[in-house]
Amino acid sequence: MAKIKLENLKSFCKENLVREGMKEEYAATVAEVLAETDACGTNSHGTKNLHNYIRKFRVHGMDIHGEPEIVAEGPAFAAIDAHNTLGMIPSVQAMELACAKAETAGIAIVTVKNSTHFGAAGYYANIAARKGMIGLSMSNVDPNMTAPGARGMLLGNNPFAYAAPANTTPSVFLDIAMSNVASLKVVQARKDGKQIPPTWIVDKDGLPTTDPSHYPEEGAMQPMAAHKGYGLAVLVELLTGILSGGCTSMGGEIVSWCFELEKPNNVCHTFIAVNPKLFLGEEKVSDRVEDMATALRSAPKAKGSERIFTPGEIEWGKHAKADAEGLELPADVEASLRGLAQESGIALPVEE
Amino acid sequence: MAKIKLENLKSFCKENLVREGMKEEYAATVAEVLAETDACGTNSHGTKNLHNYIRKFRVHGMDIHGEPEIVAEGPAFAAIDAHNTLGMIPSVQAMELACAKAETAGIAIVTVKNSTHFGAAGYYANIAARKGMIGLSMSNVDPNMTAPGARGMLLGNNPFAYAAPANTTPSVFLDIAMSNVASLKVVQARKDGKQIPPTWIVDKDGLPTTDPSHYPEEGAMQPMAAHKGYGLAVLVELLTGILSGGCTSMGGEIVSWCFELEKPNNVCHTFIAVNPKLFLGEEKVSDRVEDMATALRSAPKAKGSERIFTPGEIEWGKHAKADAEGLELPADVEASLRGLAQESGIALPVEE
Repeated sequence: MAKIKLENLKSFCKENLVREGMKEEYAATVAEVLAETDACGTNSHGTKNLHNYIRKFRVHGMDIHGEPEIVAEGPAFAAIDAHNTLGMIPSVQAMELACAKAETAGIAIVTVKNSTHFGAAGYYANIAARKGMIGLSMSNVDPNMTAPGARGMLLGNNPFAYAAPANTTPSVFLDIAMSNVASLKVVQARKDGKQIPPTWIVDKDGLPTTDPSHYPEEGAMQPMAAHKGYGLAVLVELLTGILSGGCTSMGGEIVSWCFELEKPNNVCHTFIAVNPKLFLGEEKVSDRVEDMATALRSAPKAKGSERIFTPGEIEWGKHAKADAEGLELPADVEASLRGLAQESGIALPVEE
Repeated sequence: MAKIKLENLKSFCKENLVREGMKEEYAATVAEVLAETDACGTNSHGTKNLHNYIRKFRVHGMDIHGEPEIVAEGPAFAAIDAHNTLGMIPSVQAMELACAKAETAGIAIVTVKNSTHFGAAGYYANIAARKGMIGLSMSNVDPNMTAPGARGMLLGNNPFAYAAPANTTPSVFLDIAMSNVASLKVVQARKDGKQIPPTWIVDKDGLPTTDPSHYPEEGAMQPMAAHKGYGLAVLVELLTGILSGGCTSMGGEIVSWCFELEKPNNVCHTFIAVNPKLFLGEEKVSDRVEDMATALRSAPKAKGSERIFTPGEIEWGKHAKADAEGLELPADVEASLRGLAQESGIALPVEE
């Protein structure tokens, strides 16, 4: 497996975006989000997608000169129009703004409409955690999931993340989608010719199936825990598409960012920051979070289990390894980055 | 099945609480929350519990004269100490305060610590929806759930609810706990001598079992969708116990409100209100929500399915029936209310 220093991966991503015409500050932001996501092991949402983002800019499915604009603002809220730029750019701005407002307000919410894929939701929640706050981030996406009683792709599996500051890990954080599994797992099982559990997808009749070949042509993902995941995906729609005044995943205007490169993606994101300092005074929130994490980790183990992990612990473990030893690039990530390097002429600075 | 007019049920509950010494305003609040919860069909969290609440007051596990106190406050936040009164009282105050602050701030959050069982989370979210806002409400509870890799009761299955205003129903709303099923379903299966699906509970070794007799003595509930439900239960802890400065369900200080009547319950709740008017201007949020709900309801049905319900639609259907025809009291609710009536001498005003 090829290894690369995290800083070198960031430079490579940034240089490629600048070469395409993105201004340097924004290119640095996108590079940071993507490489940090790889460092946490979430490779499906990291630098692997950079080549497709660049292709999307080239066919004008995104605007590389798009400037996010604040269209409404008050003491504890703001609404941003992303003007069809890449999602990481308005998303980092939005969470930074939410944190700045929460500093005195206690909580703040910032919506983003007319945006594109923002990568991993967890990155933005962790911006707040680094500032000693509790962060929430979420996005609607193109429809890929069914609902109880329905068939076909009805709504997005709408990712949702949170993060809170801790001591032995940078944060306790969770980054999930509202389907039982990621669609990539279904696609992989299909490639491998394997059966899947009956809780992953439904077939064209809306009935559970163990045959992955129904997806994505005629099946759909199943919401996690049935009506609960369905209901939580609707909550994400309420706080993103509905609240921002943008598009919802049920409205027909949100399309796959990567399968329809030439079309605007039209997704909406929302970011919430909560400032514990105003609630806890001298007491540190990270100490309270760490106490909780310690109680969880030190609980009695199930038979055959060696560890109880707190949310985000596995991801931060991977990040520490990447910091110390360099980031290992999975084959599909390396192939995508090498394809981009060949096209742009910017060498991929791998270790060996 | 005995029937009762909703208003008569509220009066009965209020009179009993006033008879115990609760001030009239607070007794009316508690009666309202409990009866409205029954009207929505959530009988496990409605008036059935009134008798036990009254028993808890009598043995000083709760303070019937407890006065919620605002201990910290700012533009978009407040922290309330419930001083061990019944949860409905500080919870209604907290959501009303969150809505008042969100009116100008855009969003607001109010925490409640040192509280007791607040009944159904959905009631409070719907306070916000009635004011044209999006409401979130949540609580930690005594530990009853395991985590991946653990055995025993490690954390609460922490209920969470949201509501948003709609047109054809008063709101789109969801009220869920973070376990795969409610513990009452396990207890019922045990009574009926039936097997349960392997996703409901774990046995004393922390391994999935289909035998409900393991619960609650030595087993524990399973989080919904495994690590996802576990992670979301932790989020509820972060926003309730951790943020409020109160107790967490991992800390050993939160006990069952009903099985340990003489002890303080020590739960914490949190309420968030978001004001869409500041985001959407002239456009009505209920119209946007209704468009989404219509898209969901009118989607293609699964084979054998007649309806796709939007979150809360079933509950509002029951409420409309209760309004029109009176509330049908399930046997266990009627028995509990009749027991209280016999003790207090206040007649239960059933229809026939």
